[in-house]
Amino acid sequence: MSEHGKTPVTVLGLGAMGTALVEALLAAGHPVTAWNRTASRAEGVAAKGATVAPTVAEALAANEIVIACLLDYDSVHEVLDPVAAGLAGRQLINLTNGTPGQAREMGAWAEELGAEYLDGGIMAVPPMIGTPASFIFYSGSGTVFGRARTALDTFGGVNYLGVDPGLAPLYDLALLSGMYGNFIGVIQAYTLVGSAGVKASELTPLLRGWMEAMLSSFLDRAAEQIDSGDYGTDVVSNIAMQAAAFPNLAKAAAEQGVSAELLAPLQSLMDRRVAAGHGAEDLVGVIEILKK
Amino acid sequence: MSEHGKTPVTVLGLGAMGTALVEALLAAGHPVTAWNRTASRAEGVAAKGATVAPTVAEALAANEIVIACLLDYDSVHEVLDPVAAGLAGRQLINLTNGTPGQAREMGAWAEELGAEYLDGGIMAVPPMIGTPASFIFYSGSGTVFGRARTALDTFGGVNYLGVDPGLAPLYDLALLSGMYGNFIGVIQAYTLVGSAGVKASELTPLLRGWMEAMLSSFLDRAAEQIDSGDYGTDVVSNIAMQAAAFPNLAKAAAEQGVSAELLAPLQSLMDRRVAAGHGAEDLVGVIEILKK
Ligand SMILES: NC(=O)c1ccc[n+]([C@@H]2O[C@H](COP(=O)([O-])OP(=O)(O)OC[C@H]3O[C@@H](n4cnc5c(N)ncnc54)[C@H](OP(=O)(O)O)[C@@H]3O)[C@@H](O)[C@H]2O)c1
Ligand SMILES: NC(=O)c1ccc[n+]([C@@H]2O[C@H](COP(=O)([O-])OP(=O)(O)OC[C@H]3O[C@@H](n4cnc5c(N)ncnc54)[C@H](OP(=O)(O)O)[C@@H]3O)[C@@H](O)[C@H]2O)c1
Repeated sequence: MSEHGKTPVTVLGLGAMGTALVEALLAAGHPVTAWNRTASRAEGVAAKGATVAPTVAEALAANEIVIACLLDYDSVHEVLDPVAAGLAGRQLINLTNGTPGQAREMGAWAEELGAEYLDGGIMAVPPMIGTPASFIFYSGSGTVFGRARTALDTFGGVNYLGVDPGLAPLYDLALLSGMYGNFIGVIQAYTLVGSAGVKASELTPLLRGWMEAMLSSFLDRAAEQIDSGDYGTDVVSNIAMQAAAFPNLAKAAAEQGVSAELLAPLQSLMDRRVAAGHGAEDLVGVIEILKK
Repeated sequence: MSEHGKTPVTVLGLGAMGTALVEALLAAGHPVTAWNRTASRAEGVAAKGATVAPTVAEALAANEIVIACLLDYDSVHEVLDPVAAGLAGRQLINLTNGTPGQAREMGAWAEELGAEYLDGGIMAVPPMIGTPASFIFYSGSGTVFGRARTALDTFGGVNYLGVDPGLAPLYDLALLSGMYGNFIGVIQAYTLVGSAGVKASELTPLLRGWMEAMLSSFLDRAAEQIDSGDYGTDVVSNIAMQAAAFPNLAKAAAEQGVSAELLAPLQSLMDRRVAAGHGAEDLVGVIEILKK
């Protein structure tokens, strides 16, 4: 703790996101020591009160809590490997995007060097950091999470998922998958009506009402079926019927001279599920194929 | 009009959906003449007051307004081609699912035979027919839409899109595409967390909040960009950055022993868009590839 009761923090990486993190910490009164490979990018945060460390070693030595926010896990290793001894006694919080496997590897590596490790997945873009719209998944050392909590709270909402460092990136990627599904659906819908000269904005209110209603009911129904493993309850429109009607999406696109490639894998999954004898069940059962 | 001021209607097809349509009409007091290939399926609606026609020709002769709700457009032709002369002076409303091209073909065919044609796309499952949750897109003859309106209103909400009979199936398939995008995202998200032993229902509240927020902002932003053709405004996380981070979704899935095949076409589209020199723009620009 600093003299003002605010945890002092070191931040490695002053790209768009690292800079936003430092600014949120400084705004809340946390003493910050910052380092960036390209030193000139540190000028902005220096003017706002950050201490700029000329070397990674000095940045590590400055504070127990060290946040890394670099391009990818390879760059984190590039930065930390040469000064690995300096990690002993440190609480390393890695907010760099990667995979669950990379987070687990880095967690094990840091612990071997005598550091405690917390991984994070940032669910925000830099301008959202420090606002209530931002939140970050954390997983790994609960001790680190607790000790750094006042600092982490300055970034936005927090969600600690458990001791497996892989959970934060896994949840992060799960939400991103959901988002990209949204994007696929919206882009395909606008593509289809656009092929008949209809403005996207004309479809927006209809598409919003429909997708929101479908999303909301599907989120619950799918979860219930997946968790119970019973894909056959209350089926109104079974997967065989849906698989049989689905080619209309591709046919309509072809007629209109546009592509339906974004939806092709779902047709394939439905066909395989029907072929495996599950035609009378609900669509969600395709998850059994994805699990294998 | 019947003596009670309720439009009398003929319905061809008493599958799950045709039966629901007849029941809604009967409940609202419309006289209904119904026909089905397999006669036994007419017993239920007969008990509720429908007149059962023994042949298609007699069903056609009974009323000016004729609703068809059969398996697909081929079955509509199979049913109507042998009695084509009976279509003269009829107002044919086809609520069978198909493509815009099939609707345009059938509209032209019906008009040549002296019928007026309205196509429809039902955005509901049978149990929803007659409730406010159901709505149907219509396109084609505005005269038919106007004359049949009180009957059509018994099914749920209506949305008349214009004289091109292809518009109803096009909008129908556009909304379905949106819905299937939702499903893709939700299923992939549940698959990822499930691979770490996390229950789907544990993710549901988080996934709902995130996907609803992302969907809502994307619907507007994407429409604006598509309609203006300008994919470069206000970009926080451009398509090059997203294309570079996207492989983590597939890598994480591979690490966890599950498939990410549902998202593969989006990676391919992003890569092609970046390769074409649009890396600094927003993701939505991939629609330019789909349009070609
Ligand atoms: N931006 C977002 O919307 C967003 C959202 C969620 C998560 N994230 C994640 O946050 C992390 C940082 O993103 P960002 O937006 O800040 O990226 P950025 O603006 O591109 O900055 C990248 C940072 O990494 C550093 N770096 C790259 N390679 C390095 C190496 N080999 N050695 C040392 N430093 C290296 C850069 O240093 P130089 O200045 O010297 O090049 C810079 O500080 C990424 O993992 C990203 O996925 C970003
Ligand atoms: N069910 C839904 O959730 C839903 C939602 C929206 C739209 N729709 C659309 O509504 C239409 C009807 O669906 P449904 O659910 O009622 O299907 P269904 O229960 O399978 O019924 C199919 C109907 O088509 C008839 N039929 C099939 N082939 C025929 C042929 N060659 N000649 C004469 N009749 C034939 C069947 O007659 P038989 O009884 O003699 O077999 C039956 O009346 C489809 O285009 C469907 O895509 C359905």
